[in-house]
Amino acid sequence: MPSFAIGVDLGGTNLRIAAVDEQGTLLEKLTTGTQVSRGRDFVIEEMCDHIRGVAMKFAKSGTLAGIGIGVPGIIDMDTGMLRESPNLPGWSDYPVRNEIEKRLNTQVILENDANAAALGEKWLGAGRDYESMCMLTLGTGVGGGIVLNGRVWHGMNGMAGELGHMTVEPNGQPCNCGNRGCVEQYASATAVVRMAREMIASGEAPELERAAQGEDKEFNSRRVYQLAVQGDRAAQAIFRRVGAALGIVLASMVNVLNLPMFVIGGGVSSAWEAFAPAMIEEVRWRSFVYAATALDDQAPGAVRKKTIITRALMGSDAGLYGAARLPLLELEAQAHTR
Amino acid sequence: MPSFAIGVDLGGTNLRIAAVDEQGTLLEKLTTGTQVSRGRDFVIEEMCDHIRGVAMKFAKSGTLAGIGIGVPGIIDMDTGMLRESPNLPGWSDYPVRNEIEKRLNTQVILENDANAAALGEKWLGAGRDYESMCMLTLGTGVGGGIVLNGRVWHGMNGMAGELGHMTVEPNGQPCNCGNRGCVEQYASATAVVRMAREMIASGEAPELERAAQGEDKEFNSRRVYQLAVQGDRAAQAIFRRVGAALGIVLASMVNVLNLPMFVIGGGVSSAWEAFAPAMIEEVRWRSFVYAATALDDQAPGAVRKKTIITRALMGSDAGLYGAARLPLLELEAQAHTR
Repeated sequence: MPSFAIGVDLGGTNLRIAAVDEQGTLLEKLTTGTQVSRGRDFVIEEMCDHIRGVAMKFAKSGTLAGIGIGVPGIIDMDTGMLRESPNLPGWSDYPVRNEIEKRLNTQVILENDANAAALGEKWLGAGRDYESMCMLTLGTGVGGGIVLNGRVWHGMNGMAGELGHMTVEPNGQPCNCGNRGCVEQYASATAVVRMAREMIASGEAPELERAAQGEDKEFNSRRVYQLAVQGDRAAQAIFRRVGAALGIVLASMVNVLNLPMFVIGGGVSSAWEAFAPAMIEEVRWRSFVYAATALDDQAPGAVRKKTIITRALMGSDAGLYGAARLPLLELEAQAHTR
Repeated sequence: MPSFAIGVDLGGTNLRIAAVDEQGTLLEKLTTGTQVSRGRDFVIEEMCDHIRGVAMKFAKSGTLAGIGIGVPGIIDMDTGMLRESPNLPGWSDYPVRNEIEKRLNTQVILENDANAAALGEKWLGAGRDYESMCMLTLGTGVGGGIVLNGRVWHGMNGMAGELGHMTVEPNGQPCNCGNRGCVEQYASATAVVRMAREMIASGEAPELERAAQGEDKEFNSRRVYQLAVQGDRAAQAIFRRVGAALGIVLASMVNVLNLPMFVIGGGVSSAWEAFAPAMIEEVRWRSFVYAATALDDQAPGAVRKKTIITRALMGSDAGLYGAARLPLLELEAQAHTR
């Protein structure tokens, strides 16, 4: 019988559950709201009900390889506790994995949501031809995930991949993490809106001001992007700032890890046209490793490989597929050592 | 018969060759000047003569596992060509590996010298209890090496580990690599002297000025350190700047790779007392991952692991031992797959 896996993307707003086969074909997808206000036990209980339902549905046609769950926040990989999770208030130091395993009576694999997204893009998306890659997810914050030789790099206790908190401006904008000038403060959706409001306050951005006043609640990074596309200089300058900040981080990462592929995903990545030129330009002059790999055909006798920086392909499903990939990878590793 | 390996540290000034056994015991060490001015063929020829001599000497008591050679500059791992090497002028795009193998009639393993140093410290030095670690070598420039699961991380074409060219000041000091504000411009021996001269020029540093005038040729980072130890404020401020720059890079690396150990080596690391307090302070507030692992005992039920940032232990021998380790690792890997 073929195997299938269940992937879960447990977000602060949406809960999504999918059954995916070994080839990455979607068998079923279920999306529902995460009722965070009803408490963590309720959310876990409801999630487990759905997982059981999906598992039963496919039990006759395949073997369940396992369950992977993407969770926003920092997971202690040893204990399966959530250390911190801004999007799931009240869940800190909650033994998420134990609570789920108790209810399902089976093991599950937890993963940080940005790591799961990176794994999803590596498996079936922009990184599918590479064994190692790095992904930045530009959403409310900036998440990151590093995949080395096909597997998420966790570091010593699962906290690796926090690229969103690399410093790009040593004395820059204060960040919730305690640092100043994190790339998250210049390249997240939140940062785009903050920078827009700063420009409005300084009187430099009449179009943005009109947009912000007219439809107050809808003033978001998407609206700023629309104005940039329509030619508004102030909005365009904001996305150049996004690109420059991303470029600084990417240049350092290219120099340090020399990976073949860097993927930019998350909601803000739909503004690719507005920030990518400044981003690539910044990487080009800041990273001699990038420049060297870009010039590659010119050196004699050498097989040259290029550093690719590109958009994510899987949209908001990356994390869901990545979560499903986790138990399948375990299975592969077991088959390999057997 | 027990195995031994030959390690070579081919520097711009010194050529060092060692025979090391599997346990890391030094059997023989030979140091000579690198006669760079006589051309690359001469240097390679002489090096190969020495390697042959050492190999013959121990041929009766052990089996030669192989030869590892640390080279300053960027090596194309596929072709064994030196792409760039500021310390070996005229060696760019020189097929170093082929030239050596032709003369010795056996395979050799080339490695970037900072990577070799990291591997040496991991094998027998500060990182010996860890499988993964990162090392910064503060010399004329700033080199870096990343060891993951016991092996040097090379990236796609051997250019990984260039931590010295991570950006710490987006609009800072121009660097030879083309970027601005690389950590190399604030934490290398060259940078210490440049910052001292800048302070002298601005009239802020009478003690430094006296030192620079008195013994012009001997005015180096070591002299600035001596003044810092003697209480000179200007010299102390320079090393705080060194520490702050290193702290920015280390904070980003802790957030991104979550490694258990970061090692600082190279000549400037002897000024540890002068720069380490500022460095650690910077990491503490800039990296929430560092802070979280430092606070670890307080969270309930969790097995916590601490991020350690420490001095290198092996001095200038790290790269020599690391080079010798390379063929031994190959041997282990072959034994493992057999």
